[in-house]
Amino acid sequence: MLDKKIILSAFGLALIFESLFMLLCVGVSMIYGEADRNALLISFAITFITGMLCWLPNRKHKRENLKRESFVVVTLVWVIMSIFGSLPYVLSHSIGNFTDAFFETISGFTTTGASVITNIEALPHGILFWRSITHLIGGMGIIVLAVAVLPYFGFGGMQLYSAEAAGVTNEKLHPKITRTAKSLWAIYVVLIGLETIFLMIGDMPLFDALCHSFGTIASGGFSTKNDSLASYSPYIQYVVTVFMLFAGTNFALFYFLGKGQWKKFVTNAEIKVYFGLIVTASFIIACTLYVLNDAPLESSIRTAIFQVSSIVTSTGFVTTDYTLWHPYLILIIFLLMFSGACVGSTTGGIKLFRHMILLKNISIEFKRMTHPSAIIPLKIGQKAISTEVVYKVLAFLALYVIIYAIGTLCLTFVGMDIQSAAGAAATSMGGIGPGLGSVGPVNNFLSVPLLGKWILSVLMLLGRLELFSVLILFSPNFWRHK
Amino acid sequence: MLDKKIILSAFGLALIFESLFMLLCVGVSMIYGEADRNALLISFAITFITGMLCWLPNRKHKRENLKRESFVVVTLVWVIMSIFGSLPYVLSHSIGNFTDAFFETISGFTTTGASVITNIEALPHGILFWRSITHLIGGMGIIVLAVAVLPYFGFGGMQLYSAEAAGVTNEKLHPKITRTAKSLWAIYVVLIGLETIFLMIGDMPLFDALCHSFGTIASGGFSTKNDSLASYSPYIQYVVTVFMLFAGTNFALFYFLGKGQWKKFVTNAEIKVYFGLIVTASFIIACTLYVLNDAPLESSIRTAIFQVSSIVTSTGFVTTDYTLWHPYLILIIFLLMFSGACVGSTTGGIKLFRHMILLKNISIEFKRMTHPSAIIPLKIGQKAISTEVVYKVLAFLALYVIIYAIGTLCLTFVGMDIQSAAGAAATSMGGIGPGLGSVGPVNNFLSVPLLGKWILSVLMLLGRLELFSVLILFSPNFWRHK
Repeated sequence: MLDKKIILSAFGLALIFESLFMLLCVGVSMIYGEADRNALLISFAITFITGMLCWLPNRKHKRENLKRESFVVVTLVWVIMSIFGSLPYVLSHSIGNFTDAFFETISGFTTTGASVITNIEALPHGILFWRSITHLIGGMGIIVLAVAVLPYFGFGGMQLYSAEAAGVTNEKLHPKITRTAKSLWAIYVVLIGLETIFLMIGDMPLFDALCHSFGTIASGGFSTKNDSLASYSPYIQYVVTVFMLFAGTNFALFYFLGKGQWKKFVTNAEIKVYFGLIVTASFIIACTLYVLNDAPLESSIRTAIFQVSSIVTSTGFVTTDYTLWHPYLILIIFLLMFSGACVGSTTGGIKLFRHMILLKNISIEFKRMTHPSAIIPLKIGQKAISTEVVYKVLAFLALYVIIYAIGTLCLTFVGMDIQSAAGAAATSMGGIGPGLGSVGPVNNFLSVPLLGKWILSVLMLLGRLELFSVLILFSPNFWRHK
Repeated sequence: MLDKKIILSAFGLALIFESLFMLLCVGVSMIYGEADRNALLISFAITFITGMLCWLPNRKHKRENLKRESFVVVTLVWVIMSIFGSLPYVLSHSIGNFTDAFFETISGFTTTGASVITNIEALPHGILFWRSITHLIGGMGIIVLAVAVLPYFGFGGMQLYSAEAAGVTNEKLHPKITRTAKSLWAIYVVLIGLETIFLMIGDMPLFDALCHSFGTIASGGFSTKNDSLASYSPYIQYVVTVFMLFAGTNFALFYFLGKGQWKKFVTNAEIKVYFGLIVTASFIIACTLYVLNDAPLESSIRTAIFQVSSIVTSTGFVTTDYTLWHPYLILIIFLLMFSGACVGSTTGGIKLFRHMILLKNISIEFKRMTHPSAIIPLKIGQKAISTEVVYKVLAFLALYVIIYAIGTLCLTFVGMDIQSAAGAAATSMGGIGPGLGSVGPVNNFLSVPLLGKWILSVLMLLGRLELFSVLILFSPNFWRHK
């Protein structure tokens, strides 16, 4: 049997935490003196009171060995926070129905950034801020959840972190988990602060600068403008590009950088692949735009590097409609939706480290064919990767492809065309935002059938929680009493 | 250094073997008294003489340990036979240029069945027979090459068979490899004979019955009609369906069946998955066609089971234009292009056994999450699969996806739209024939750009030889002197 009290108290804490951010939005609404104040205030009250009712009666309950409970909480807390997070949209009539509001909220929390709102600029500032706050919370959640909240359950968070990262090993930053979380969180806040300053230097108002910084560093992608970053100056676009790339970097490396250990940064194997991929893909796209589309050189380079960084880091900001490009460039963008950036960042999707293990395993297989008796260890950089991790990573990748195929199939079943379904499933699982076809960068997800939006919500959650931690809840083994 | 004499003598033998089938087509041409006789006769002469020139001076050369030479022969013999196999098309002006003729020939030898010929019925009988003969040779090649030709090189064919089957273990039929090959070949010939008889009972003329039987049992898909099997009677379509399913079965099981060991057949784990997949997919498609398209019940079932069997067994015959179906049915057909049938059959593609290992590995990963310390062996049926085989299979699947993605990207680069490129690459690697979009079942590959046809030829060869045996030739390790 699951310990329901522990679970309820965790949900309660999460809702109280969420409600305080709603209160912040009430403040924003009051500054602008707009009509969404009451909706936000009621949302705060409902969320806060529900949270208290869950937490207060169960707060003193403690127990050992709560692994199963943690798995349940890790998945369901996103769903519950998304349900309450939909309240501001519904109560302010910014979004017409619950499905759409839920979709927008879970897209925010999972830092996907897929939207159903057509006229974003018409939203009141309080709601707009709440929309970007969901990114902020989601990004924090990814960092903090595993290393700081879970120890509260009397069970080492790192264990689950390795479950969430599905076999991706991490160098420990600190022996104490709480200190690790605080360090990572500090990096997160510093990056947001820096980007906000740089954006304001480029004449972006504080409000928009904050919203875009949340969207960038959480690798979310909600903008305050209808055309995302397309109308902003080249300077702003470059700033966002740089900070998207920061958001895709393993945060632990910033920590080492801060301690002067720059060598750990430059010798990191994944970082090399990360920048190699960004440069190569941008180069191909920039050349093609310059030659085929006759675009000016600077704008070709800027567009290419912005769009590649946005997709690879799973942010999803756009400056151009890439679905109008040559088919092979569209296909490159589509394939990049499956790359992901570095582990230990806020980004979603597969992550480069897994691809590196996959490729390494293939190259070892060739060596085994010519030297059948040799034992060849799989190494990434200087580090040997254990057989269990290799198995976990290969299983993850296989599962990713299978769920992707099933997801796409379900989306075509509810009526989407194949290309739009393929793009929607890829962008949702990867936590990116814009897709292809009818859900491309200049469209949004409003036209997706209701059932399709629920399918996409599930895919976003699966992608964000790295598949296994969600799917284990459906494994009969997990529920068997020991 | 490679032993060139051994390689030349193997190529010589292969060409002599090929030329004898050309001579057979000269006979067919003479029976019908058509104008293609001279083209076939010249093709025979060129191929036979070249073969003799390669074989005669090197025939007495023998050496031990020729593993590298075998790998070179296994790949290049398909290319060389395809070059000479193009002669009848080019010399008879049935196909206008060498690229198209080569594409048609390698498509035949790899038992893919993708065609560039628009008006098939206008071809003279000799050429038409040669076209189907390329399937016959290809199917025989797959069976015989590994188990009978290679021992000639003083090196156990079974070793390479396991390389070709990329880690798929096989129960040995006979201790002597040559006897194994003969048994399998006998099964191949008996199946062709049986199908020919059943087709003739349905009033198909002997010539067409033979051609279709070659196409079925080799899992090729070249027909003698422009609309493939669409205009034939339901009886004929059912017969072809049954024999396609036979062609997708592990031939070793027929051998056991012939010896009265029917239990080995019914308890085979892969066979269960094979028929389970066929029944499930056919059921979904038949229901949809009956309900959505308002087709009669019997024809819905027949179309569904025919098309599913044709794709899963990588045959590629068609009775309908499935690209006109509901998008989710098109996607099912597309996904089935990646399934493949049983190992040890003439069919191409991934094969179900590999998928079973993949899925088993994922399910074991879930068990490991709840019981981290348990050692859980991967079993298919009653048989435990070794770690090396699991690694090989996972590496194969990863490589398949990567090459598929690169292939599709190259095809869009040379000018195909994404859907057609995705379908063309899938159907070529899987050895099937019809694709999607501009290369769908009622179109053909004539419109594909020249460079695209070469890309597809490479994909067909890679798929047929199960990736590793071709790609190892490009591995620096392979060429390093020991």
